[in-house]
Amino acid sequence: MKIAVAKETDAAEPRVALTPDVVKKLKGLGADISVETGAGVASGVTDAAYEEAGATIAASRADALAGADVLLTVRRPSPESLAGLKPGALVIGTMDPYGQADAIAALATANVSAFAMELMPRITRAQVMDVLSSQANLAGYRAVIDAAAEFGRAMPQMMTAAGTVPPARAFVMGAGVAGLQAIATARRLGAVVSATDVRPAAKEQVASLGAKFVAVEDDEFKQAETAAGYAKPMSAEYQAKQAELVAAHIAKQDIVITTALIPGRPAPRLVTAAMVKSMKPGSVIVDLAVERGGNVEGAIPGEVVEIDGVKIVGHLNVAGRLAASSSALYAKNLSSFLETMISKETKELAVNWDDELVKATALTRDGAVIHPIAKPAEAN
Amino acid sequence: MKIAVAKETDAAEPRVALTPDVVKKLKGLGADISVETGAGVASGVTDAAYEEAGATIAASRADALAGADVLLTVRRPSPESLAGLKPGALVIGTMDPYGQADAIAALATANVSAFAMELMPRITRAQVMDVLSSQANLAGYRAVIDAAAEFGRAMPQMMTAAGTVPPARAFVMGAGVAGLQAIATARRLGAVVSATDVRPAAKEQVASLGAKFVAVEDDEFKQAETAAGYAKPMSAEYQAKQAELVAAHIAKQDIVITTALIPGRPAPRLVTAAMVKSMKPGSVIVDLAVERGGNVEGAIPGEVVEIDGVKIVGHLNVAGRLAASSSALYAKNLSSFLETMISKETKELAVNWDDELVKATALTRDGAVIHPIAKPAEAN
Repeated sequence: MKIAVAKETDAAEPRVALTPDVVKKLKGLGADISVETGAGVASGVTDAAYEEAGATIAASRADALAGADVLLTVRRPSPESLAGLKPGALVIGTMDPYGQADAIAALATANVSAFAMELMPRITRAQVMDVLSSQANLAGYRAVIDAAAEFGRAMPQMMTAAGTVPPARAFVMGAGVAGLQAIATARRLGAVVSATDVRPAAKEQVASLGAKFVAVEDDEFKQAETAAGYAKPMSAEYQAKQAELVAAHIAKQDIVITTALIPGRPAPRLVTAAMVKSMKPGSVIVDLAVERGGNVEGAIPGEVVEIDGVKIVGHLNVAGRLAASSSALYAKNLSSFLETMISKETKELAVNWDDELVKATALTRDGAVIHPIAKPAEAN
Repeated sequence: MKIAVAKETDAAEPRVALTPDVVKKLKGLGADISVETGAGVASGVTDAAYEEAGATIAASRADALAGADVLLTVRRPSPESLAGLKPGALVIGTMDPYGQADAIAALATANVSAFAMELMPRITRAQVMDVLSSQANLAGYRAVIDAAAEFGRAMPQMMTAAGTVPPARAFVMGAGVAGLQAIATARRLGAVVSATDVRPAAKEQVASLGAKFVAVEDDEFKQAETAAGYAKPMSAEYQAKQAELVAAHIAKQDIVITTALIPGRPAPRLVTAAMVKSMKPGSVIVDLAVERGGNVEGAIPGEVVEIDGVKIVGHLNVAGRLAASSSALYAKNLSSFLETMISKETKELAVNWDDELVKATALTRDGAVIHPIAKPAEAN
């Protein structure tokens, strides 16, 4: 069984799908591991570190992939970049699967079995494979570091001989994994933190991190958490009431971090241009949803814009800005899933296509698209 | 009595010598305050905020300075930029006074009384005027934020479903005001922190912040603190022993922050190219002494360089990277000094040239250089 890892083909992607720790683990399961030279450099992993862990360094992508049973990847590869893999090889990574029927059909045509890690069920057994959580956690941390780097003041209160520097006031919108880590990090740095979320369960989590919870707590709010633990879209009426509360709150903040994402939908607009305008000059907003349309009016993907003295930070791939840590966790997510598809006896691949994790994530098999998310509508 | 504040003439200087808080205080002492339009913008202070506090906005530098008794400044102004001040006006700011005899003589020729805030005695009464401390404190905080922003890993330990992210190991070299704040900030962010200093008194301060003290503690070390509380230069022998200890320690660090400055001398070289090379790829070094020749071999003023995967951060004017906070404290430092030179009865300037603070800081008066630091050597 040969497992391949190559440099990501998107130059803006510094992460890598495999780290030396995981190489050792997969070697123990009977795999041969081939890593394209330089694949880990942007994540602080040298070729030598891979070799020391037991991988073979391949001089090119083609060499790494030649005859491989499995390709581990960060982003969905193009069909052309898969040349050399065994027919039916597993390609495991984040596949950005929503609304991408054509791209997924092309993977079927390339005759690989593609797995979208984003579709992993949120069940206990699969927690260790949850790439959305592992990357969101680091993005939440990094959002605060990015805010602190753009902010012209210190975050903590400082008592000095010349007077007191007041603590920054930070407001985190969306208290999922990223938001909770942002709250925790801003608290570490000494900010006075508040947070909001449409899920009632978030209230207690926010409070337990020492932050103040800010939300319109009406009946709709109390019923808002979906079974999957994701936020569901709220009514226009609720959104208006919440926006009013939030608008008054935002005007008093130094830092706002928005993290509201709903899988498969555009990001909800949480911060309007008027709210941005209400903030003091020198304030900083970080929009972690900028890649999905943005929570903040005026945010531009990949840029830090300044509007009336307020900076709106729209960095892309925020987890990738901590590539060493995010690659380490991502590689563990992937290998934990891959392990479930390797037979301990034969030390070969043995995919159980009836396993719920496989069923939830497999997009393509035997030349066909098999996942409802990307299946052509048959009646059309 | 008219007090003037103008935009700094160095475009790389975002700080401003006066903030609205201080405007109010000086107004209360009987001053009229004229601020050049836009002077506070880079520190997050609008013209409107100055006006609200009681200042007048001047359309130009010349208008701000016209007929002023006092000019408050961040950096030493050129003689040409002082046109319009009253003869003998006080010019108060940081004057970079060491080895600048010609520039200081030019201020004398321009017939202003220039005061170098850096020369303020380290006595209790003057603590509130200590610009070196107020700015170093913020620089120490900012050094850690800058390190975190360049670092490809998270600083705190994170326990996640996919495994544990280890805490970063941070080493702070020089435990003065900047170093102690760097230690405190790195600890806040969850790093495992160690520190070194040639002053024995630092050992306890470092330990009280929860960091490990790393130093060769021989007799020379035990006698090393000077009366003024600054570090004194150590013998070559001590430096060699300490370098050996430090070299072994640095090889295990993720982040190194150097803060070693000796007033009026070039910064000591603490980190050699070999030490840089010994660090893991992805490590980050921040050199806070880069403007004074640098503590780190390979550091380049104003740049972030990467050598064998190790980043060396050489930002200039690090306190200025937090311009809102650093201006706020700096303005309080200056106004506290200026207050001692204003008569409460007449509400006019009444400089006591025999006051020890005035004597320690006054460089020029009545067209002559009066401070030994910049006096022409008479016997030559």
